Amino acid sequence: MFEFRLEATAGAARAGRWTLPHGEVLTPCFMPVGTQGTVRALSPRDLEAIGATIVLGNTYHLFLRPGEETVARLGGLHRFMGWPHPILTDSGGFQVFSLESLRRVSEEGVEFRSHVDGSARSLSPERAVEVQWALGSDVAMAFDHVIPGGASREQARDALDRTLRWLVRCRARFEALKKEAASREPQAASEYAPATGTISSYGLRLAAYGSRQTLVPIVQGATYPDLRRAGLEGVLGAGDWDAVAIGGLSVGEPKAATWEALEGLGPILPTGRPRYLMGVGFPEDVVAAVARGVDLVDCVAPTRMGRNGTAFTDEGPVNIRNARHRDDGGPLDPACDCETCTTFSRGYLRHLFQAGELLGLRLLSLHNVRFLIRLSARARAAVTDGTFDGWSRAWLDRYQSSKEQA
Amino acid sequence: MFEFRLEATAGAARAGRWTLPHGEVLTPCFMPVGTQGTVRALSPRDLEAIGATIVLGNTYHLFLRPGEETVARLGGLHRFMGWPHPILTDSGGFQVFSLESLRRVSEEGVEFRSHVDGSARSLSPERAVEVQWALGSDVAMAFDHVIPGGASREQARDALDRTLRWLVRCRARFEALKKEAASREPQAASEYAPATGTISSYGLRLAAYGSRQTLVPIVQGATYPDLRRAGLEGVLGAGDWDAVAIGGLSVGEPKAATWEALEGLGPILPTGRPRYLMGVGFPEDVVAAVARGVDLVDCVAPTRMGRNGTAFTDEGPVNIRNARHRDDGGPLDPACDCETCTTFSRGYLRHLFQAGELLGLRLLSLHNVRFLIRLSARARAAVTDGTFDGWSRAWLDRYQSSKEQA
Repeated sequence: MFEFRLEATAGAARAGRWTLPHGEVLTPCFMPVGTQGTVRALSPRDLEAIGATIVLGNTYHLFLRPGEETVARLGGLHRFMGWPHPILTDSGGFQVFSLESLRRVSEEGVEFRSHVDGSARSLSPERAVEVQWALGSDVAMAFDHVIPGGASREQARDALDRTLRWLVRCRARFEALKKEAASREPQAASEYAPATGTISSYGLRLAAYGSRQTLVPIVQGATYPDLRRAGLEGVLGAGDWDAVAIGGLSVGEPKAATWEALEGLGPILPTGRPRYLMGVGFPEDVVAAVARGVDLVDCVAPTRMGRNGTAFTDEGPVNIRNARHRDDGGPLDPACDCETCTTFSRGYLRHLFQAGELLGLRLLSLHNVRFLIRLSARARAAVTDGTFDGWSRAWLDRYQSSKEQA
Repeated sequence: MFEFRLEATAGAARAGRWTLPHGEVLTPCFMPVGTQGTVRALSPRDLEAIGATIVLGNTYHLFLRPGEETVARLGGLHRFMGWPHPILTDSGGFQVFSLESLRRVSEEGVEFRSHVDGSARSLSPERAVEVQWALGSDVAMAFDHVIPGGASREQARDALDRTLRWLVRCRARFEALKKEAASREPQAASEYAPATGTISSYGLRLAAYGSRQTLVPIVQGATYPDLRRAGLEGVLGAGDWDAVAIGGLSVGEPKAATWEALEGLGPILPTGRPRYLMGVGFPEDVVAAVARGVDLVDCVAPTRMGRNGTAFTDEGPVNIRNARHRDDGGPLDPACDCETCTTFSRGYLRHLFQAGELLGLRLLSLHNVRFLIRLSARARAAVTDGTFDGWSRAWLDRYQSSKEQA
């Protein structure tokens, strides 16, 4: 379980295959984000139809609403959201550190006010692991201290050190849960309760779930190359992990600094493990990240942009609200095979946005996620057939120059 | 074309089969409403998956936005909304008469202010026919004068007489368009333009569409049985129609008055034509209408209620927001075969509504429309096998008593 097979490389770019408890993920892979137990405006069937193989869930949001105990009672996150394929859960670190005025950070963890009802809540390394264990994701993320893009070296060092100390605590709690689960394993019920059934034993259910989970560390260090290296070395020294995540990038820093930080890590990242760059998902960034050895990315951009009426294409983003689309009988993206592009005209899609119809939000979200999944698959094919360098340069040139013209 | 085959009867209830240019409709039939060229929150594939065979479009809304010329340029309403099956368009009468303070009625037609941009617009019998001709629906409705539920006898008589005079004008314009189209017919292009193509000839496109359309009259007369009879006789005297619609009911009058008006018409309605009761779509009303010889109904209730978190079941409506569903692992409606009921738990659906997620709106709309389509199919089966009387009484008893308990 959690085996990663590296199938081809082209420069730093990689094509791989990651085996998870709920399925296999071909890399490079874009992971759509299902913040509150649903990828906004899309159904699990939609996601299957556009080739999604893994989705993200957010610990922070599910912890607050409906609460991990409710999700566990309803059979765990896979069953809850009707997605029987792999799920990765974020630890909540990114979210609680985004709350700014609503939080208080200590060595113990983070106290904050719930954005849902204003109640006082807290997350710690141990609690973040427990919540994800209850959710039953395939991949749980360690609880990290995330800082803004422009943070000082001192802040970055402090957050990095805390993240490493928290990683040790995450691991200890995770191992304890695993041990406890192993002792109960023989009684574990079938993974999915029937739709009409109820979950009789919360503890048992948790055990059955968590024992098939892996815990993945997050490398911090802002844009300071030496801190990034120290962060990675600290992470690798703390255990043998099934994957390594790079966090705290794409948080407001200049794009050049993002790529520099990533390039600095390249030579010392383990080649036999997937590398997950957190929070990246604009098309040009996906290609640039893959070119620097990234295997997995995630972002809310395709669904958020889609709901705003912006569609990704190889020629840059298209604003479907624009009046020039009014009588356009052509597809949103002639190169795309999604339901939106094969069924509807730009004129119709524009009408849906002008009229404030829900279907528009869904159709553009669907296309944008499909676009990133296809883009990842095209990158993978280019790595496999040895044409990645030329393909990625040509793709980026075309995308950027079309974007500038628009 | 437009042949209606009566396959079975049980008391006043009927089972039939209506052949339309874009497909066949088995009756009794519930028609989902696609006000602005989309059945709110549902895609054409969703509608196909739940067995919808015909949808409604609203002339008033499409006339204002995006305008019937844009729809025609984009290939007509079927192609515009990606629905290759039958479409019935309402004439706009009901909508403009609902605008109250925004309209001015004369013998010529209705002047009103657009709810979209406040501009001065007008609809007349001729214009309503022309707009529907451009939209290219299978079934166009005559432009009628609709009055509120509590209208006086004098108001009702006045509106009824005007509706009959307008019917003659609708028919004249419709026949003229048909004649004009027939002279162009040999040049008509294939019905659906390719997705990437543009419509070169607006007039030609209109011709190709409209010539396959039928115009259906609407019987008015409020809840005055003698006026209703006069309305029906007037309609039947004005031409030979492929169907007859009953309008101006379900507009605020007591339920008993609705059924009395309908029962009064029964003996003089032509048996060989489908009967369409406009604006009815709550489950108990569908069964009651079918029991009184109605073949077709439409209503926004299933989608509107669905967006509010209310689901139809045989045991009455269920409010999914209710806290008692929080940990409920069972389906919304155990008797239903829709994607919502076979994939998700009540607990998950409640979570979607609590969290304000778009998927919730879609999943409850999907279920409610499926519920009414299944209910119509069950009524049809009961007519066919001769058990309708017992089935409908038992169904209504169960539904009403469960509703009262809740």
